[in-house]
Amino acid sequence: MANEQTQSYTIGVDLGGTNLRIAAYTRDAGLLETILLPTRLAAGRDAVVDDLCGAVCDLQKRFSTRFDLYGIGIGTPGPLELPAGRLHNPPNLTGWDGFDLRCELEKKLQRGVVVESDANLAALAECFLGRGLSMGVDSLCMLTLGTGVGNGIILGGKIFDGAAGMAGEAGHATIYPDGLKCPCGNDGCLEMYASATAVVRAANQRIEAGTAPMLVGQKWSARTLAEAAFEGNADARQVYTDAGHALGIGLAALVNTLQLPLYVVGGGLVQAWELLKPAIFEELHHRSYVYRLTEPGSPVATHNPKGATHVLPAELGPDAGLLGACILPFTANGRS
Amino acid sequence: MANEQTQSYTIGVDLGGTNLRIAAYTRDAGLLETILLPTRLAAGRDAVVDDLCGAVCDLQKRFSTRFDLYGIGIGTPGPLELPAGRLHNPPNLTGWDGFDLRCELEKKLQRGVVVESDANLAALAECFLGRGLSMGVDSLCMLTLGTGVGNGIILGGKIFDGAAGMAGEAGHATIYPDGLKCPCGNDGCLEMYASATAVVRAANQRIEAGTAPMLVGQKWSARTLAEAAFEGNADARQVYTDAGHALGIGLAALVNTLQLPLYVVGGGLVQAWELLKPAIFEELHHRSYVYRLTEPGSPVATHNPKGATHVLPAELGPDAGLLGACILPFTANGRS
Repeated sequence: MANEQTQSYTIGVDLGGTNLRIAAYTRDAGLLETILLPTRLAAGRDAVVDDLCGAVCDLQKRFSTRFDLYGIGIGTPGPLELPAGRLHNPPNLTGWDGFDLRCELEKKLQRGVVVESDANLAALAECFLGRGLSMGVDSLCMLTLGTGVGNGIILGGKIFDGAAGMAGEAGHATIYPDGLKCPCGNDGCLEMYASATAVVRAANQRIEAGTAPMLVGQKWSARTLAEAAFEGNADARQVYTDAGHALGIGLAALVNTLQLPLYVVGGGLVQAWELLKPAIFEELHHRSYVYRLTEPGSPVATHNPKGATHVLPAELGPDAGLLGACILPFTANGRS
Repeated sequence: MANEQTQSYTIGVDLGGTNLRIAAYTRDAGLLETILLPTRLAAGRDAVVDDLCGAVCDLQKRFSTRFDLYGIGIGTPGPLELPAGRLHNPPNLTGWDGFDLRCELEKKLQRGVVVESDANLAALAECFLGRGLSMGVDSLCMLTLGTGVGNGIILGGKIFDGAAGMAGEAGHATIYPDGLKCPCGNDGCLEMYASATAVVRAANQRIEAGTAPMLVGQKWSARTLAEAAFEGNADARQVYTDAGHALGIGLAALVNTLQLPLYVVGGGLVQAWELLKPAIFEELHHRSYVYRLTEPGSPVATHNPKGATHVLPAELGPDAGLLGACILPFTANGRS
């Protein structure tokens, strides 16, 4: 990225259903300062927008004496229509249906902002600052396993938005056509099997069904389930194995469709990567001849390392989305 | 495309498992002349390559007095490794595993050629000369329903090849995880439910299972099944409805993942589009909230017509692959 940016900073915003994070960022120093606020959904849209803009202005006051403000990047839960920057019935921001997020922020802040969905920004950060950087690639597909399953696709260093900004919803690809009903309206979405929520639900369903005696008598979280699995609890391990199979089926289709050089699995659940991994790779081998032809060690990958398909855990932690918002203005997706 | 090309012609080759077609093409006149030969697989690789190169030279002799040869495009069944142009165990060209198709042709023809997989070329032709042209878009995802289910993705007027040329295999995305075993090694691939082969197999399975009394006593092809269905044979119609459901499940995932402006269904089976259509759109509505948000008539599509997601039958017929080979040298995918 260009030289003039070394003396520039950006402001990135990670607008979540629970937390609102606003940060100032430079390419040399990374995150200069981060403001953490609760997202006051109950107080209404305007209150949240005021909090957001207030924090942006605070950071501007503090850093604009030392650096030029290169741009402002905003990450939001989707579905987000682009280039309009309009929200469409976002499940994590109830009451925000039809909200012109970009226009409202630009009016309040008196300058252009770039808006993107949070999962796309996590993928962007992972591409430029995380696994993409360490693997030396500028294209990847990321699945973020959190409350739901987010998805972002980066092609040639740019977020792939699709025609109206709504690409990157592979978390709602059908894995089991007659599977669990998803709030999105579909049955058997990846999200219903491979999110933190899904893992806890699966554990509880197994307890109820009497098929997980080693889980009985405790209230589980994704984290405690992973800890139990690592400590040898076979029923907890099975829950993660099942999630890994769903992920592997989904990833196999994404490899067959896009054959990108890198598929990254991130989000909170990836702490359990070692539990998910065997089932993921079993499904990839079984279900994707494209993966078998191009996986590390295959003749294609050995002869042409840039042609290899890698499937790896993310390197960035929970800051991925915020970092992505910070670097968004530097990428060519800038639409403001 | 540029002016200098008006006095140029290309040669396109469609190398199939049964037929070998070689054509000369100009942008103004389209196909100038097409040579049709059998693919003499039994005579061995060298014989097929000799036939191919002989026909290319014939066309060169005939047209190079009137036009400049702009380039030669070759379509081949995959899996095809790019940029090497090497085949990897192609199911429709048995015995060609590891064959350096591009290098061999360049050696024989004494000039560069551009090689691509046949399904990608059908998508390229559909983009520039078919449905993409009439819809005014330069990005699309095409499924070609023939012996198998081919897939090609065009982004910004270029074939999307993936890291090693193996993108565009959504025909082998898993639709039913415990479904029919596919020769690719996977179970429940789209190809096992929505190809011409699949439709005939499904009819025969229904006859054997005794669930299709109206199909008993006849040897069916995809075409005769479609004719019977159009004439009111409910069992034949059910076979196409089932194929449409599988297609719809696959298309819903592709819309959720890529949200391209256009998804095109082509190949021989698309003669039965009207039979497939109700189940396709039922699944799209059910399984893709991205489709529901962006389909024609949706608020997003109405407000921003370029953001709409269209799912339509192909406009080009069986020449799509050959036409794609002819226009390939004109596109930026030229790698020779």
